[in-house]
Amino acid sequence: MLTYTLSAVRGSPPLYRQLCDALRADIAARRFAPDEKLPSKRTLAAQLGVSVLTVEAAYAQLLSEGWIYTRPKSGHFATPLAALPRELSALEASAATCASRRTGQSSVHSATATSPFPAPEKRQRSARDPRESAARNHGQTNDEIIDLAGGGPDVEDFPFSVWAKIVRRLLSGGNRELLAPTPSAGAMELREAVAEHLREFRGMQVDPERVFVAAGAETLYALLVRALGTARPWAVENPGHRTIAAVYRQCGAVVRPVPVDSGGLSADALAASGAAVAHVSPAHQYPTGVVAPAARRYEWLAWAAEEDGRVLVEDDYDSELRAEGLPLPTLQSMDAAGRVVHLGTFSRTLAPSLRVGCMVVPEPLLPRFREVFAPLSCTVPNLMQFALAAFLSEGHFARHLARTRTRCRRVRSELLEALRSGPLAGRSEIAEERAGPHLLLSLRTRRPDSTIAAAASAAGIRVRLLSSFYDGPAPRAAAGRLVLDYSALRPGRAVEAVERLARLLS
Amino acid sequence: MLTYTLSAVRGSPPLYRQLCDALRADIAARRFAPDEKLPSKRTLAAQLGVSVLTVEAAYAQLLSEGWIYTRPKSGHFATPLAALPRELSALEASAATCASRRTGQSSVHSATATSPFPAPEKRQRSARDPRESAARNHGQTNDEIIDLAGGGPDVEDFPFSVWAKIVRRLLSGGNRELLAPTPSAGAMELREAVAEHLREFRGMQVDPERVFVAAGAETLYALLVRALGTARPWAVENPGHRTIAAVYRQCGAVVRPVPVDSGGLSADALAASGAAVAHVSPAHQYPTGVVAPAARRYEWLAWAAEEDGRVLVEDDYDSELRAEGLPLPTLQSMDAAGRVVHLGTFSRTLAPSLRVGCMVVPEPLLPRFREVFAPLSCTVPNLMQFALAAFLSEGHFARHLARTRTRCRRVRSELLEALRSGPLAGRSEIAEERAGPHLLLSLRTRRPDSTIAAAASAAGIRVRLLSSFYDGPAPRAAAGRLVLDYSALRPGRAVEAVERLARLLS
Repeated sequence: MLTYTLSAVRGSPPLYRQLCDALRADIAARRFAPDEKLPSKRTLAAQLGVSVLTVEAAYAQLLSEGWIYTRPKSGHFATPLAALPRELSALEASAATCASRRTGQSSVHSATATSPFPAPEKRQRSARDPRESAARNHGQTNDEIIDLAGGGPDVEDFPFSVWAKIVRRLLSGGNRELLAPTPSAGAMELREAVAEHLREFRGMQVDPERVFVAAGAETLYALLVRALGTARPWAVENPGHRTIAAVYRQCGAVVRPVPVDSGGLSADALAASGAAVAHVSPAHQYPTGVVAPAARRYEWLAWAAEEDGRVLVEDDYDSELRAEGLPLPTLQSMDAAGRVVHLGTFSRTLAPSLRVGCMVVPEPLLPRFREVFAPLSCTVPNLMQFALAAFLSEGHFARHLARTRTRCRRVRSELLEALRSGPLAGRSEIAEERAGPHLLLSLRTRRPDSTIAAAASAAGIRVRLLSSFYDGPAPRAAAGRLVLDYSALRPGRAVEAVERLARLLS
Repeated sequence: MLTYTLSAVRGSPPLYRQLCDALRADIAARRFAPDEKLPSKRTLAAQLGVSVLTVEAAYAQLLSEGWIYTRPKSGHFATPLAALPRELSALEASAATCASRRTGQSSVHSATATSPFPAPEKRQRSARDPRESAARNHGQTNDEIIDLAGGGPDVEDFPFSVWAKIVRRLLSGGNRELLAPTPSAGAMELREAVAEHLREFRGMQVDPERVFVAAGAETLYALLVRALGTARPWAVENPGHRTIAAVYRQCGAVVRPVPVDSGGLSADALAASGAAVAHVSPAHQYPTGVVAPAARRYEWLAWAAEEDGRVLVEDDYDSELRAEGLPLPTLQSMDAAGRVVHLGTFSRTLAPSLRVGCMVVPEPLLPRFREVFAPLSCTVPNLMQFALAAFLSEGHFARHLARTRTRCRRVRSELLEALRSGPLAGRSEIAEERAGPHLLLSLRTRRPDSTIAAAASAAGIRVRLLSSFYDGPAPRAAAGRLVLDYSALRPGRAVEAVERLARLLS
């Protein structure tokens, strides 16, 4: 019988979260046999003396993270996990019941909805949820260009007055600190604030000494190449953010585009690629929206641990904007071998024009990164460093994130409803992971992508095609698929956006 | 007979400057034969109807730029210049009387004072000018550490209130511009302001489209490697700023340290190095203080023009702080072949913590640099870009530079006097070029550099040894030489500084 001691003391995490954490730790520690059936929600609720809703919430979260999977009408089962070398998984309490590695089965249990990516089994959920109501939005319908190409939060949402207040305060202090050089990895104040933010929002235990700050994600990519070298190839997600491969190539790396399937970057293709570094976005792959399930993550970690010098770069560019559920644990927190560099940015959540990114370097790689940074000056101006440190540590960022998430959820539900009830109903399919502010829309059309792209500008809408995210020629299956990034879409504009999208078909 | 029409109309440049420009153009155009004697100051003054002082100032400037040289008691002569391929020198009006290339003679005519660097002939000037009075400074003598290791202007000198005012104004405008992305090479407002600044202070004709802005010089170095490639080696000055070679190496370039002689980076050694890119600082070499004479510059330009793909990187890190005379023309303005990338920074003149550097890319390289920048975001935060643009275009920077130069000159003369009259008189020799805020001091001592370095921290003074600027082992001649960078030395502290320096000898 499963028993856990859950604390209802004031200040403890919610019960469902405690239960979720306990179950996750046990699955990671292989205390469940591969494919072992979990107790039914009702049974477990009775055993623990909690409500069925609590168990339901915990199971939903574990499902979305891929620790468990469902078989229709038979309940929930523990996902078989790739074997890791002994004591390499930070989440494992003991390695007593290690499951054997089951390549090819791992991506089965993803909660992915309809997807253009190869998957060995059928999906369990349909994206066209009949429970969703078909209410209409009340959007304005003016001629302003509608931006579904994303690339950052709406300028309107930036907490300008708070930010300005902090900057003014720093300036009026006549602070010498603002001018004296900071350490090359960033001012300690900022690195401490980032570490605290990551603890709070991503459950990471981060020594501020491991935090390195630089002028945006692209500057970090370049520094990564300088630290990790170009002797062996770098793997990137295909499709993916094209800038990542572009920067790696500019910096002299040989880049191997590795296909993304329904579990994220393919572990088999990665192993075959000959790469020594793999850039992955487990929390929310761009543009496919895939959330990497636990099994796939373990495959990556096993790959990294297999050979000296292998490194995973975890790109966590928008996990704070997850639309539903808890943010997933980071790959770095699942890794005890010190092979994962965690990358974060404030461009997606605050403003791209701030130009601040940060990375958390695992302990074993610290000496090498320190060596690279030693001769350099920090690329973020002091004023920005101290302003951001204050913005984080005084709680403004947390409040801003809460507001942004609320807006993202509202826009998401408006957009989903408009897609299901508007002129595209029956002429398109939605694939999304409820993870971040974008989704994939497959148009039922034979129009070539070039025609669709040309029609978009005439229709007054900025939108990108999935095929434009491929390194090299896009597969046929990618045709007619739109990446709808609604991070810059204002509430009330979804109906108009969908009407304009419908013009792409006529 | 030499005749020039000089304009005395209000608003024209000073007469000496007009004369200097006219003579320079004629020498560059080879209208003087190699080693041709110029008219005496008195004769030319009479011919032109100007005062002898005007001619004297023009000759002094041309001397410091290396266009002319003196022979004791016989007057001024035109420097023989390396032959450039036809129509490659932007300063040449005609190529009718091209001098033949005279390698090895070019560095003879430098105005360098005592120098540790190989030079084929004796110096013409002594650094220990007897005309300098031996007055003492009235410095405080407290225990605060005295910084002669430089690395930027004194924080106290930063025009904080003006800067803060601009930032506040930008913030209170609630300006959407502050958040919208700028072009990857920087906001047009800033690039225009930089171009105007370079026109005014460096006499450069710069299309703002050729200006690229990034987060400091080191970010520019890395982008240069990405643009110019690592297929062939990169030459750097030895001794030199160690960070330059460090960044190039980190970015995958094979670096060839090329010796600096009394004319700057040796042209012969450069030709033998096999390098395709050469990083030079013609205006003021760090740490030797050498100002590259015109002849050497032409040798570099000839080297660059000799083979496709060769590029000169002109590092103009502190020319605005030149202690005496006009700033020298830039290498880029002497080059019509489009082989020179000009680098500037605001770290030396404003504050390192601003993190803004800029480069001016020659026309033929523009397509390649645009390609590299295309996928990137500008690494300078918008707020900094717009604040700096306003700071430049509203004249604050020009005023700040004037103040900083005044302070630099004052500190320089205090330091020179203190060296000549204080406890180091007779125990050291000064080598400097009147160019920027540092000089070389040779101590008459047999103490090894390691002992001197250890004594410095005990004496409460930050100072760097020339030997620490070498890539690889320093030559014996570098021993016992201090690089005195007084950019961070406050007025009134020179006497105390020299007293502490004297302790390094006992």
